[in-house]
Amino acid sequence: MRRGWFITFEGPDGSGKTTVSTSVVEKLKEFGYEVVYTREPGGIDIAEQIRRVILDPKNTAMDAKTEALLYAASRRQHLVEKVLPALNEGKIVICDRFVDSSLAYQGVGRDLGIDEVYSINRFAIEDVMPDKTIYLNLSAAEGLSRLSNREFKDRLDQEKIDFHLKVVDGYKQVVEKYKDRMVIIDASNEVEKVIQDAFEAVMNVVRVR
Amino acid sequence: MRRGWFITFEGPDGSGKTTVSTSVVEKLKEFGYEVVYTREPGGIDIAEQIRRVILDPKNTAMDAKTEALLYAASRRQHLVEKVLPALNEGKIVICDRFVDSSLAYQGVGRDLGIDEVYSINRFAIEDVMPDKTIYLNLSAAEGLSRLSNREFKDRLDQEKIDFHLKVVDGYKQVVEKYKDRMVIIDASNEVEKVIQDAFEAVMNVVRVR
Repeated sequence: MRRGWFITFEGPDGSGKTTVSTSVVEKLKEFGYEVVYTREPGGIDIAEQIRRVILDPKNTAMDAKTEALLYAASRRQHLVEKVLPALNEGKIVICDRFVDSSLAYQGVGRDLGIDEVYSINRFAIEDVMPDKTIYLNLSAAEGLSRLSNREFKDRLDQEKIDFHLKVVDGYKQVVEKYKDRMVIIDASNEVEKVIQDAFEAVMNVVRVR
Repeated sequence: MRRGWFITFEGPDGSGKTTVSTSVVEKLKEFGYEVVYTREPGGIDIAEQIRRVILDPKNTAMDAKTEALLYAASRRQHLVEKVLPALNEGKIVICDRFVDSSLAYQGVGRDLGIDEVYSINRFAIEDVMPDKTIYLNLSAAEGLSRLSNREFKDRLDQEKIDFHLKVVDGYKQVVEKYKDRMVIIDASNEVEKVIQDAFEAVMNVVRVR
């Protein structure tokens, strides 16, 4: 019987997930909660090995479905070795990206279809869906502007722009599909405000039990 | 539009798949057919990398579902890079093990369920099921006897025996489920007779078009 809370952070590149989620974890710890912060592959050796195959720049021949299956495999191992044990100990698990990222990036970004990608992830995670997902919402334009400031200084190539727009659209569909699980946070605000909003959303979950 | 023939060989360990399938390929070539003989990962670099993660003896923590997803990923890449191009050129592709192996070994041998394992493989292979599958049928007892002669000289440990029995039972279920696609060959006969039976079964497929 699972006793902890499983909370994921989602959002397109540039939405501030890592900054916000790590800050929320610090605040939770200040309040005395036992929190495990993680992101796939999360230091799990087998999951790291799988991730190396996915990310090896030499693997240009990789098919999109191969990639989606590898992400699901990595997710499974990380879940079994790290997330579930912590939940079984009653801890709060905060995970930076989880199944919704695959639905947005592989399902829509790579055109595989949300339901198709969900089906293999359903096999991987069974009924272990997040109790709540904090979605850091950013307009496509603002996401692009942040990306161009961060990674490319002055320009983004068209392929990256197209992919980003598809992922943002994908997240829109995912948030609509799972709206009962989602807390939508306006990520265009000042970062301190975003962190406070996300922290309150998490507190609303962990307080109720 | 796929124009070639896709024929797979299946059977539990000890059934003689490799000997029989390679001999059938030689005979087909003598008759002038263009044949590609393969088995996963089939020299496909990405599929080989995935297979190395599966088979690394250090990876004792690997979950059965992680393993099943990795097999599906390796299968996908091998299919896309090697099987489909050959089929599209009108060739006969003879593949030593394919989806049915996952159904028997992971679905039943590892207790994941045939339908569950099929669902992730359906994602991987889409509608590319074999035109015909040659099943080398062997009683559980005879399979065990061959295995003990081959690999362990005088004894098999109980875990290997139990797993072998489950896989044989798994194949029984798979053969029943897909009986229209299966040609069941009695693999307890002399090897020359088995090869001849399998060759005729393949000829019955490739002659009709």
